[in-house]
Formats: sequence, C-alpha cells, structure tokens
Amino acid sequence: MNVIEIITKKRDGLEMSPAEIEFMVQAISAGSIPDYQISAWAMAVYLQGMSDAETTALALAMAYSGEVMDLSALEGIKVDKHSTGGVGDKTTMVVIPLAAAAGIPVAKMSGRGLGHTGGTIDKFESIPGFKVELSREEFIAQVDRVKAAVISQSGNLVPADKKLYAIRDVTATIESIPLIASSIMSKKIAAGAQGIVLDVKTGQGAFMKEQEQALRLAETMVRIGRGAGRQVVALITDMSQPLGYCVGNALEVKESIDLLQGRGPKDLEALCIELAAHMLILGGKSDHIETARGKLRDLLVSGAALAKFDDLVVAQGGHLQYDLPGYGLPQASIKEKVFAEESGYITKLDAMKVGHSAMLLGAGREKLEDQIDPAVGIELVKKRGDYVQAGEPLAIMHANRRELLPPVCQLLLESFQLSDTAANNPPLIYQTVT
Amino acid sequence: MNVIEIITKKRDGLEMSPAEIEFMVQAISAGSIPDYQISAWAMAVYLQGMSDAETTALALAMAYSGEVMDLSALEGIKVDKHSTGGVGDKTTMVVIPLAAAAGIPVAKMSGRGLGHTGGTIDKFESIPGFKVELSREEFIAQVDRVKAAVISQSGNLVPADKKLYAIRDVTATIESIPLIASSIMSKKIAAGAQGIVLDVKTGQGAFMKEQEQALRLAETMVRIGRGAGRQVVALITDMSQPLGYCVGNALEVKESIDLLQGRGPKDLEALCIELAAHMLILGGKSDHIETARGKLRDLLVSGAALAKFDDLVVAQGGHLQYDLPGYGLPQASIKEKVFAEESGYITKLDAMKVGHSAMLLGAGREKLEDQIDPAVGIELVKKRGDYVQAGEPLAIMHANRRELLPPVCQLLLESFQLSDTAANNPPLIYQTVT
Repeated sequence: MNVIEIITKKRDGLEMSPAEIEFMVQAISAGSIPDYQISAWAMAVYLQGMSDAETTALALAMAYSGEVMDLSALEGIKVDKHSTGGVGDKTTMVVIPLAAAAGIPVAKMSGRGLGHTGGTIDKFESIPGFKVELSREEFIAQVDRVKAAVISQSGNLVPADKKLYAIRDVTATIESIPLIASSIMSKKIAAGAQGIVLDVKTGQGAFMKEQEQALRLAETMVRIGRGAGRQVVALITDMSQPLGYCVGNALEVKESIDLLQGRGPKDLEALCIELAAHMLILGGKSDHIETARGKLRDLLVSGAALAKFDDLVVAQGGHLQYDLPGYGLPQASIKEKVFAEESGYITKLDAMKVGHSAMLLGAGREKLEDQIDPAVGIELVKKRGDYVQAGEPLAIMHANRRELLPPVCQLLLESFQLSDTAANNPPLIYQTVT
Repeated sequence: MNVIEIITKKRDGLEMSPAEIEFMVQAISAGSIPDYQISAWAMAVYLQGMSDAETTALALAMAYSGEVMDLSALEGIKVDKHSTGGVGDKTTMVVIPLAAAAGIPVAKMSGRGLGHTGGTIDKFESIPGFKVELSREEFIAQVDRVKAAVISQSGNLVPADKKLYAIRDVTATIESIPLIASSIMSKKIAAGAQGIVLDVKTGQGAFMKEQEQALRLAETMVRIGRGAGRQVVALITDMSQPLGYCVGNALEVKESIDLLQGRGPKDLEALCIELAAHMLILGGKSDHIETARGKLRDLLVSGAALAKFDDLVVAQGGHLQYDLPGYGLPQASIKEKVFAEESGYITKLDAMKVGHSAMLLGAGREKLEDQIDPAVGIELVKKRGDYVQAGEPLAIMHANRRELLPPVCQLLLESFQLSDTAANNPPLIYQTVT
C-alpha cells in the first residue's frame, strides 16, 4: 500500500478501504508518514468528505492505535458520557454521581479545557486534594468500589488522533464533520464503555454554531458507534448562552453541588437529568425515559446523588466542607459586579463572550501549556429572558487580578443584548438522535 | 498576514489576494512555512482551483522568488519556446537555430529529462564536448554574438517553484492546471524573454492525456503571460505517438541534424516550422504566419539553419563531423531489430511505452540522480498509419547492455497496435491558442 495512492483516492472523491485507513493510521502513529502527507490527506478529507464506512474505520483504527481501556473486570453495562464542549457546562460533574447512584459503573476519562470552554478535569482539580491521576488498577478498583472514577485522559490513548489533531490544528482542517466525529468516537471507543451518551452543543458558544451542523455531527457519531458495536445516543442541546449561572472551575463545582442538593439552576438540572436518563436506559437500569427521569429526581431529592458525589471526591483524595457557603473551594479575592447600563429584556447572552471573559480572568487556557486559576470566573446574575433595570447587576466577576476587571467588564457588557420586548427562548434540548 | 487564514480562504473556495499569494511564496522560498502547511494549501488549490488573477500572481511571485534573467542588454525582441514534454520531442534543437537564423535572439534555458520524456539539455550534452554550464556573462555574450545559446536551468531560478514542486510530487497535487501553468510560466518569466511560444502536448505520451485538459492548460498559461506583460502563443499538439522516428539523446540529435539538412521526418519538420513561425511573429520578424513559414523553409533549404546550429554547437565547445553517417555522435554497441509478429495497419503507437523502452535502455532517468547513456534509445522503422508485414522490422533498439533487449523488445511490441483496416491519424497540431 502506498500513501500517495491513498491521498490520490481521497482527493478524487473515492472511498478508502478499511485496510487503507488502517494503513494511514498505523503510519501516523508510527511516525512513518511525513506531516506534509498527513495534512494533504486531511485537506482532501475536509473537501471530499468521508462515507460512514470510512468514518467508522478511521475511528476504530485510531481507537486501537494505542492503549485501550479494558473495563471487562467491572460488573454491569459501562456507560460513558461526552460533551462537545460549552461554556458553564458542568453536567459531567452531576451526571457521574447521578448515574453511579442509579447503579451504572462510570469509568470516566476527561480532558482539560482550551479556549473559551472549560474541561471537566480542571473543574474536579479545583476541589482541594482531588487527584486526577490514578493508575489503571486504582481507577478500575475505584469504579468497582464506588461505581465512579474520573481520570485525566492518558497520553497513551489514541496517539494517532493526537498527532492528526495537532496537524489539523495548523492546516485549517479542524472543522470537518467526519474528522471531528471520528476523533471524538475514537476516544470514546478507546475508553472502553459499551454505551455512550453524547451531548452535542450548538449555538454561539459551541463549536458547531448551526443546529444543522450539530445534527450532522451527532448522526455521524451515532453511526460510528453503531458500526463499532457501541450503543450511542446523542442529544443536540443549546449552547447559545452559558449553562447555569457559573463559569469558572471552583464556581462550577459549587453550582454542581448546589444542584445535587436540589438548589441548582433549572436548565442545568433538566439537562443533567436528561443525559443521565439516557445513560440509565443504555445501562439497562430503566426501560423508559420517563421512569429513568423519575428515578433520577428521587436520587437528587433523597441526597443519594450528593452522597455518591462525595464518595467519588473522597475516594480521589478531595475534601469539601458542605457546611461552609463556598464548600471549602478556592475563592477569588475580588468579587466585582457588572451593572446594566440600560433597562430591558435580555434577548441574547453570548456564551462565547462569557467564556472568553472567564478565560481572560484566568479560568481557562489560551494555549495548552497555560496555567489556570481555579478560583476565578464569572457568576451570572441575569440570563436570557430576564428583565433588567439599568443599574441592576448582570454578573459578578470573581478575580484575583484587579487590572483584568475593566476589559472583562467591557466584554461582559457586550455579551448581553437588551431589547424592549422579550424574545422567545430557544429550547434547551433540540433533538435526540439514536 | 497569517498562513492558516490563507489556507482557510482557499479551502473555502475564496480568491486569495496578490499580497496573500506573495506572502505564501515568500514564506515557501524563505523556508519559514512548514511543509505540512504548504501541502494542505496545495491540496486546497488542487480541489478548489484558482482564478486567472491568482494564477498570474502565483506565477509572478514564484518568478521573482529568485534570480531573474536580465536580457535587456540583447538587441531585439527575445523569444523563448517551451514544450510540456513528450517522447522524441527534439523540436527545441531545430527551432533554436531556425529562429536564430531568422534574426531572433534565443537565450534558452532548458531542463533535463525525467521518466519517459527526454530533456533538451541531455540531448545537447550527447554532442561530444558540448558544455551546458555557462556563466551569465558567457551566456549573454554568446546570444549577442551567435543569436543562440542553451544552458541548463540554474538552481537559483524560481526557488519557490522548486520547493513547491517537490512537495506536490509526494502529496498527489501535481495534476492541477493552475499549479502546472504557474510553475511553467514562472520559469518562463524568470528566463527573461518577452515572447513565449508554448507547445502543449496531448495524448498517451503527454502529461495531459486529454485534449480538453491540454486546452485548459494552454489557455491558462496564455492568460498568465498576458497578465505578466508577455506575448504568448500556445500550440496544442499531438503526443499520442512519438515525434519523428528517434527516441534517445544522440539519436535525436542525429535526427535533428537530418532535418536541418532537409532530410528529416515530415511530422517533426512541420511542427518545428510552425513553432518557429510563431516565434518569428512574436519577435517582429514576420507579419503573417504563411510568410514566416516560407522564410523558415528557405533557411532549411539554404543551409543557413544548419550553419546556425553548428555555430551554436561550436560556441559551446561541441564538435560534430557532418561527413560521417553518425555525425561523430556516440553510438550504441548493439543494434537489434524488433520484428512484427503479424501483419496489419499500425493503428496505435503508444508514445508512453516507447518512451519507457528508451528509458529502460538507459536513455532516460527514473529518478533525478540516475545517470543516462547518451548513445542508447529506440529508432522506429514504422509509425502509425503504416502497413507492416509479419517479419518486417518495426523498430531498432540501440543498446549497450544485451540483457535489456528482451524486456524492451516485449514493451516495444506492446507499443504497436495492428489492425486489418487503417485508422484515421489525428492531426499533428490541434489548435493554436492566443
């Protein structure tokens, strides 16, 4: 087999065979194909697309290009959850204990945040003492014992995807549905679960700005999952405004704990229940979505979900103080309000800008090697649909550096769009793809 | 300006500005852009195409990426000639003395052969003593004195094209009309002539197999020339069978001298006259193509063209003996005939296979670093349209290694297609593009 022939085939819009895709992925992992051939191929894929068979073969080949988690020692159907990334998206922190409390073993590998979106690992790490690096044995043993564990995604997982992504990042070939879908699904397949619930975000704060794109991505991932013998459900959900009110690592942990105590924002709670409900169905713990939702609401009310969350935190070395207002999480030294300059209904709350505001304060990374500050972030006071009077607070900046306040305040003011008449809110969950 | 933005623009089918193209070309020459970005961009260009403005800007930017020949010291309108490459294409060796004898200063830079096609420089080098490396001063002085000089293309000419071509060669991005056109035209522009006559080959032995593709390439090059302030004429000519009867370096020199003595093959003579006639018109030496053709026929009959050829050869250190049958050119030790196995009309004579036969004998290079043998090659006895009896010779192999004869004989037999009825010959010159 010959790399140039494979590039030529894709360039000409023909379908690559599974063997050809396997050959490319092996060569990418082994470093035996030069970067300039990988990028030419990626551009050909970007412009010519890939069939379902090709996308599935690519996801599988990448998944098996490195270490693959073996969860077979764990009893029950293992179910994973993945979000394509959003602003204020702390669902994973709530969904893991919910699903685990319902009896689903959740062996979660997560990533760190980049750009305007946060990462689950960074959020958990803002809990004092919380360790995100466990050995494979510790990880499996914890899931067996607690039903839940969260670790930082290993460097040995899907090395081909890592290499390919690094090249795509600098050759304008990121925004390709088949490449995004196979990249995500390769990681999910390598992470070992049998069932996968995907949260595909759409809107201003999401990678997929258009619902149509998000739907195509969701459908592609569901088909890859099916082709790889996994059960997959995808929800298309709104990310035009941030999820919940808090954006920033410790702030999001606090909001998650509020939710687990029954005092969380309704949008966030509804989405967490929905995602976890699908996990229960995939994991064989419920037959009907309504039954699953009911079961999960009970777990919230009874405190079982919070208890499971605490089991997870304690198992990984973390300690929280539920009797303190901030639960013992790191707190920023400065809390400064952003006030509305005029009155009106909030018709738009730009998730991208809020995400960037939090990043500017130090809650996120511009580059992978940047350090983050767990305490800082944005606490929204008003959200889309609310009416605000001029002079009322719109948001609170949690900061540790005073010089950052003016530009962030400005950016936050730009995030809000006011109008004399209220606009219709888009639904939180657009569609379920199975 | 940012490379990723330029790649993105082309990926999305938008037009790059001249400044953006200039930026890319400068970065390619300077080595400040990694190969993987060059190849992703080349694939985007391959699949999205380029406008005339982009193609012209690319040719100009590449032309001025390195040394540019200054021919202004030479009197008269300088006219260049270029062929896209074929089998048995020795027109340059005939056209240079023809045009020079008519008073056109011809400062010719040529390349070496690769694959199944030969190169003018290799052909001239088969003349004993002929030097293809002259200093810039020697080159200009010779054109001033003799009206003609031929040198090997300098390494400092169009460095961006050289780099880009090397990457295209290994990323399946060679066969792009705008990239081919701007590559050829960048070299012609850098070579300094005001007028350029292009011979765009089409057919089995040519790079452009289809007439339609050849026409598109010709039109693109003519438009680039116009955009760059050059006068350009392109002929679309047949390369389904070899041009003339000889394929191989010294063999082609011999056939060229035969022609200059009025004893050359008619197809070759017709094409040389036509190419040179367009040079005369561009060079202001004739007003009408028919007058130009007549003038050139006179130069052949009078011996003036042969005398000019000999002036050129002598000026560059070569020596030929016109009284000897082989003109003192190197000769192969083995001459073995290939006989027809059946009788019939030759309906096809595959130029590509004949070119490969000559290459296998050592007349051409598979890789750039391969050594060639000037003496070896193929002498055709029959061509398309001829009737052949079983047992009659079809061709003569000129070889220096006996073990090569059986496979080459086999390949030559496969080059000929026989039939009971004669087929129509395609025209030698399909079209003139101005």
